[in-house]
Amino acid sequence: MVGLDMQPITVPPPSGQRVHARCDLLGHAPYSDDAQGLFRPYLGAGYRATLDRIAAWMSDAGMSVRVDAIGNVVGRYEGIAPDAPSLLIGSHVDSVRHGGRYDGMLGVILGIEVVAAFARVGRRFPFALEVIGFGDEEGSRFPAAMLTSRTVAGVREGFDLSMVDGDGISLAAALAEFGLDLAAIDDARIAPGRVLAYVEAHIEQGPVLEAEGRAVGVVSAIAAQHRYRVTMQGMAGHAGTMAMHLRRDALAAAAEAIGTVERIGRAGPADLVATVGRLEVLPGAANVVPGDVMFTIDVRAGTNAVRDAAAGEILSEIRDIAARRDIVLGVALQHDLDATPCDAHLTELMEQAVVDVTGAPARVLVSGAGHDAMVMAHLVPVSMLFIRCEKGISHNPAEAVSTADVEVALRTLTDFVCLFERRC
Amino acid sequence: MVGLDMQPITVPPPSGQRVHARCDLLGHAPYSDDAQGLFRPYLGAGYRATLDRIAAWMSDAGMSVRVDAIGNVVGRYEGIAPDAPSLLIGSHVDSVRHGGRYDGMLGVILGIEVVAAFARVGRRFPFALEVIGFGDEEGSRFPAAMLTSRTVAGVREGFDLSMVDGDGISLAAALAEFGLDLAAIDDARIAPGRVLAYVEAHIEQGPVLEAEGRAVGVVSAIAAQHRYRVTMQGMAGHAGTMAMHLRRDALAAAAEAIGTVERIGRAGPADLVATVGRLEVLPGAANVVPGDVMFTIDVRAGTNAVRDAAAGEILSEIRDIAARRDIVLGVALQHDLDATPCDAHLTELMEQAVVDVTGAPARVLVSGAGHDAMVMAHLVPVSMLFIRCEKGISHNPAEAVSTADVEVALRTLTDFVCLFERRC
Repeated sequence: MVGLDMQPITVPPPSGQRVHARCDLLGHAPYSDDAQGLFRPYLGAGYRATLDRIAAWMSDAGMSVRVDAIGNVVGRYEGIAPDAPSLLIGSHVDSVRHGGRYDGMLGVILGIEVVAAFARVGRRFPFALEVIGFGDEEGSRFPAAMLTSRTVAGVREGFDLSMVDGDGISLAAALAEFGLDLAAIDDARIAPGRVLAYVEAHIEQGPVLEAEGRAVGVVSAIAAQHRYRVTMQGMAGHAGTMAMHLRRDALAAAAEAIGTVERIGRAGPADLVATVGRLEVLPGAANVVPGDVMFTIDVRAGTNAVRDAAAGEILSEIRDIAARRDIVLGVALQHDLDATPCDAHLTELMEQAVVDVTGAPARVLVSGAGHDAMVMAHLVPVSMLFIRCEKGISHNPAEAVSTADVEVALRTLTDFVCLFERRC
Repeated sequence: MVGLDMQPITVPPPSGQRVHARCDLLGHAPYSDDAQGLFRPYLGAGYRATLDRIAAWMSDAGMSVRVDAIGNVVGRYEGIAPDAPSLLIGSHVDSVRHGGRYDGMLGVILGIEVVAAFARVGRRFPFALEVIGFGDEEGSRFPAAMLTSRTVAGVREGFDLSMVDGDGISLAAALAEFGLDLAAIDDARIAPGRVLAYVEAHIEQGPVLEAEGRAVGVVSAIAAQHRYRVTMQGMAGHAGTMAMHLRRDALAAAAEAIGTVERIGRAGPADLVATVGRLEVLPGAANVVPGDVMFTIDVRAGTNAVRDAAAGEILSEIRDIAARRDIVLGVALQHDLDATPCDAHLTELMEQAVVDVTGAPARVLVSGAGHDAMVMAHLVPVSMLFIRCEKGISHNPAEAVSTADVEVALRTLTDFVCLFERRC
């Protein structure tokens, strides 16, 4: 009798097409907790089904598979000598609500495919190849993000097992329910020296590669970020009776501030971005001059210095705007994240791999979004490869990547492993 | 035995102080449907108690009192000859939710006090004096405003008795519950010739008189108004990964538009106001470049021509902004109200009354807010007197008027009646 979990008789050879198809397969129930689309929170039912499926693929690719103490799935393809330190390839398997199929997952499946390609021809290295699917990067279940890479890298400050999800279930309860031993969680931490480097492939989540007609790009750093919450308090009044020269219009002041944020963001280097993404107006009626406005300012750049200079200039101009308009200004720094440079040597190798595969110089860019690599950099040298995604759309069911680009990424990563062998 | 409704033995003489105290008395339960503050919707329990109280004061002032067919309270002080046409003085008795004590009510109580002052000395005119408390000006119960003045003036287009309040009670049911005869509602309409003029005193609801240190002002016109709903559609994107030069940021475009609205509003004549009071951002997250923004533009001026020129200039510039930024623009005209000039002759009389009382030239200004006078102008010549209110605050429990200013208004209106006698 044939078991339901029996492997297919013929497995297609490693290819971008297979990677793409696997991401698509995992984009729906039972790999999603949302029957209508993709939502795969950490430690949920879809998450468990996904780990089972990934474990089977890892096993097919010649890896031994384990689920670590914090719920990450890890496959290991031994090196020439047993028990060698590893080159770790991976990304995350969780998704946001109404997420896309490639964010995170593409990097995990690509890692499996890289190993499958070497395993197929019996190629081994002086190091092991490990592929990791991190369980929580998005923070879409518990009120903190990158829980699992933080555990692996041993930088767990700022979260504990008592925090609860939207249903009041604690992280401790969710881990126990998943079958993990709460007392052993720190076993997930990777000992120094056991991993040589961490490599993460991820969709760009931005439009730069598409705009420049490139399949992939090499990440030089993960951006430094400041996020501010700004309040402007003027005076509400009747839109018909409050003469223009007597107004202290909080929205008009905020609009001027938004113009400043955009102008300074545009004037800076290419890796600087400055955004007002959220804005709320009170009282918010068509016939009332706004008395209070709250908005956010998000400033990111490849280096702390560029971010700090831009943020300083923005805040200085906003203070002038508020003073000139007799607006009571409040500014609170909500997020403060230093830049994480990728390892210079590994970045060179990744650039070389791109040149080898595409025949063109590599595009080097800063990642404006955070990734597990940012956390893993606390532990080991890291490198990241970006893959073009359609219109830069991400965190959305419309997220799309071409099979051809996935093929380029697969070849680039495979070449990277060979270059890493030569230079390490 | 003394009845509960028995009149006090001593009534203080007509004064601004008494007017002020009466407005304050009516600012709470049982004259309000809100135990915490003032909310007096048309035909509610607080409304009924208020009409009873006003009727008693009208009666004290020497007037015969009736509630008309649409629920307005009307007091009549006969002229020298019986059944003469009247000079009608009034405003509205309903309030918005969390309203102030003087908006509307001050004009009604002032009217009663004017009559009381003449009745006290037995002074009669070639015309009757009538005081009206309109039942619905604010539109705070049914989805239309100025229902009762529109019925009186015979301009009832655009509302019918089947419309329902927030509890699903129809206007017809509310009128019947109040004890009114649905078949006789048009009896509330005033026949041409029965009223010579309508005079309304109202708080300014704006800061102009306070800024210029004046107790009262004379209204030359009720503003023309255009209200637009504007949508701007750009492209949402990740705030960290969407390079500045590739953005189609809907909020940055809207911010530029808001700057344009303010600049054109400020550059126009003193009676022009232009306001963006409501703005909504989608998706509205700190880390997402806004893809969609909706905002309102409210443009008002003393004449249609000034309003039209400003609105045209604003829309033209916004079209340019949208085109330059590759933003999909939607503009819908939601309200279109012509200017209502006050009667030139009556305005002159009111200005003269202000000169007589204050010894200074009258400040003439445009009312940016709508009033029952705007509707009554369809029937008879109208004049309006504005009374300074603290910081221009209105539609708010903090609404405040000084007793001294009410006294000035009372004397001005009394003088106006005498001037009207001489000139009519």
